Amino acid sequence: MTDDPKDGIQTEEGVLDLETGDLSQIRKAIEARDAQRVFELLDPLHPADIADILEQIGSEARRTLLHLYGSEFDGDILSELDENIRDEVVGYLRPEVLAEAVRDMDSDDVVDLLEDLDESQHSAILEALEEEDRHAARQALTYPEYSAGRLMQREFVAVPEDWTVGQTIDMMRTSTELPDQFYHVFLVTPEDMPTGYVTLGRLLSSKRETALAEILEDSFRSFELDEEEGDVAYAFNQYHLISAPVVDPDGRLVGVITIDDAMAVLDEEHEEDMLRMAGAGEGSLSDGVLETTWQRLPWLGVNLATAIVASLVIAIFEATIETLVALAVLMPIIASMGGNAGTQSMAVAVRGLATRDLTSANIWRVLRRETLVGVLNGLIFAVVMGVVGYVWFGSLMLAGVIAAAMVINLLVAGLSGIGLPALLDRLGVDPALASGTFVTTVTDVVGFFAFLGLATVLLL
Amino acid sequence: MTDDPKDGIQTEEGVLDLETGDLSQIRKAIEARDAQRVFELLDPLHPADIADILEQIGSEARRTLLHLYGSEFDGDILSELDENIRDEVVGYLRPEVLAEAVRDMDSDDVVDLLEDLDESQHSAILEALEEEDRHAARQALTYPEYSAGRLMQREFVAVPEDWTVGQTIDMMRTSTELPDQFYHVFLVTPEDMPTGYVTLGRLLSSKRETALAEILEDSFRSFELDEEEGDVAYAFNQYHLISAPVVDPDGRLVGVITIDDAMAVLDEEHEEDMLRMAGAGEGSLSDGVLETTWQRLPWLGVNLATAIVASLVIAIFEATIETLVALAVLMPIIASMGGNAGTQSMAVAVRGLATRDLTSANIWRVLRRETLVGVLNGLIFAVVMGVVGYVWFGSLMLAGVIAAAMVINLLVAGLSGIGLPALLDRLGVDPALASGTFVTTVTDVVGFFAFLGLATVLLL
Repeated sequence: MTDDPKDGIQTEEGVLDLETGDLSQIRKAIEARDAQRVFELLDPLHPADIADILEQIGSEARRTLLHLYGSEFDGDILSELDENIRDEVVGYLRPEVLAEAVRDMDSDDVVDLLEDLDESQHSAILEALEEEDRHAARQALTYPEYSAGRLMQREFVAVPEDWTVGQTIDMMRTSTELPDQFYHVFLVTPEDMPTGYVTLGRLLSSKRETALAEILEDSFRSFELDEEEGDVAYAFNQYHLISAPVVDPDGRLVGVITIDDAMAVLDEEHEEDMLRMAGAGEGSLSDGVLETTWQRLPWLGVNLATAIVASLVIAIFEATIETLVALAVLMPIIASMGGNAGTQSMAVAVRGLATRDLTSANIWRVLRRETLVGVLNGLIFAVVMGVVGYVWFGSLMLAGVIAAAMVINLLVAGLSGIGLPALLDRLGVDPALASGTFVTTVTDVVGFFAFLGLATVLLL
Repeated sequence: MTDDPKDGIQTEEGVLDLETGDLSQIRKAIEARDAQRVFELLDPLHPADIADILEQIGSEARRTLLHLYGSEFDGDILSELDENIRDEVVGYLRPEVLAEAVRDMDSDDVVDLLEDLDESQHSAILEALEEEDRHAARQALTYPEYSAGRLMQREFVAVPEDWTVGQTIDMMRTSTELPDQFYHVFLVTPEDMPTGYVTLGRLLSSKRETALAEILEDSFRSFELDEEEGDVAYAFNQYHLISAPVVDPDGRLVGVITIDDAMAVLDEEHEEDMLRMAGAGEGSLSDGVLETTWQRLPWLGVNLATAIVASLVIAIFEATIETLVALAVLMPIIASMGGNAGTQSMAVAVRGLATRDLTSANIWRVLRRETLVGVLNGLIFAVVMGVVGYVWFGSLMLAGVIAAAMVINLLVAGLSGIGLPALLDRLGVDPALASGTFVTTVTDVVGFFAFLGLATVLLL
């Protein structure tokens, strides 16, 4: 980007780059309790960057910074903060600063702020709002979490569907209550039901006497209040929507969702998928030690249980291993290759389910493909591992056993890597949530069984 | 969503839901070669949904469908198709249909189409374009792949920076060449350098005599032609941009990137991260067997090499295992727990690096946290596994050895889960690319060494 570097904070490519030691300047100013310098450093920054800085400095420095910067504090910084840091920051702010910060926020940002805060902090925020906004915020909180109702803003422009371009432009030029940002004018029936929308660009380039109905965009889609925000984000991305109306159960227009909020949701959904696939819960870098330990405990517990199952399989073949200890040496290779291949297939499946590209219409074709890929890669690595095994232990039979186990395990890895996530999805469970541990368990169990079983039959 | 179900295709929530058997209607129409019915079924659908259908039916059906639907084929469908299916589809289309389809596309979509196609298919597309568009497309292809220059569209509205609202509105109302979609008017110097932008909403609600300079948005950021598209997408999400100008090396405005394209890039980057973390390359559901085998081969190969390293560690302790075969039974539990804990930390790190929340400013704090989390979870599972081990094998010493190995391995897992991705990032390698295999190798090697080493010292 070509932003000017201002006031000593280098913004490489226009994005605040905390790698380059800028943060140390801020740290110094905080330590010196130099409010003027803190202001100079932070003033040119975007609220999102100030939020990042607050997240990255320690809790002590955060408190001092907020004390020094207090009266300049902007509501948008709150919107950008990580949930747990936000709680802390709200607690540090003086009530009048908090009130001022909240009053400037869009209705959807206020709701976003409220839903993540402790109940005890709600009243401080709600009291800061004007009567009308307070009512709207309270109502928004009655919609399900992660729903379109929570995501929408109540500021929008709607006109009767039989209006002309001229009427609409005149209304906007005289209205004093237009939203800060809007990209479309919605057409509504007398019952307030949205029937279409017109872009401002089209409005500006059309003749005054043109009926709005003639210049409608064909991408119009509306959402219901309780629709899941993940579905909303998917639809924005799939259909290239810029804004879309939200309707109540009677079909009346009650709010608008804009693409920037949908993009943020898409980003959060991806984060969730990635962390869940790894069994890391809702983990974030700013979480504390105990919180993080607690988040990771459940899946480590599940993993321990499944690892014990795999161990029980090995225990069946204790006598075989005692006779031929080379098996214990090679065993983890089979497990590792199966786990890796399974994870590859699983990532493709979880992604395909998230983008709705993996459906009942093509699941069989994909399973067939994974079977063939598993067999092919199984054969390739069977040959490699067979040679390695023969060179290492000098036994052709042992080499044959590990080669055969490799093919079996990579085949099963492909099948379970696709099949387990698809099954979980069908059962209504988030496929990212549990797939990792389960796929690995299947490949461990099958891998150990195939390898040690074949060894028992063929080598003893 | 509240879209009407039309023509027999049920769109649950307004999103085409291929689970509900709608595809079978399309399949039937294709088999019956009923062009009229195909048209009825596809006509109400969004190009993105038609693209999804083309991806999900087999190659044979795809060919027939395109033959039947040919003359209705819309360029936007091409934009939405997966790369490898796109190649195939372009080959099936009659030249005049392809020409017609391409002429209607935005300049950024044409470039996107061209860059994924074989060189041999370029000329068919380029010839379909008008002289000016062809020149523009050729020029765009000279910019680096995945750069802002490839992502931008050349259609935008720019006016001199000293204009008023009235002048701007008059120009737009008389211009015949406005883009299909635009949200901002850019202000430029006489040298064509963009200095700010005004939203159309603000323009419409301001007095005619207001200078544009007075109603500038403060979120203005511009990008350079060769800036990476991932950085562009990050900036859009971080700073809530809706559109942003792209400038050439002389700072002149040459194009505009809009948020819908940035959202698509963000989505692709996530896909890349997830698949790379799993070692699945660029895999997609529509890839063929050989292509998929080939994509997954390299990381399976790396994994085999690293698994052999872990096996060599076990081989050191062959004599110990021979004496106490229970070790071979319990060994995979240590490896599995370490791998799991390492993957948890790694997912948090890869995500933190992608969102630029993990930086040199907080890496030490995060490493310290991971150490403590590793020790805490290590202690918890040491107790659990110690009890299990004692009950199972009746040896207090064996239980103690596995408990100690658990603590050591979970501690190392946390450190390497954060440290390895951070190191790769510092070395300029995508941290998602290689972390998975390497973290697991570290936990396997350390886990086996700790467990078998302690056993050798304490139990023999």
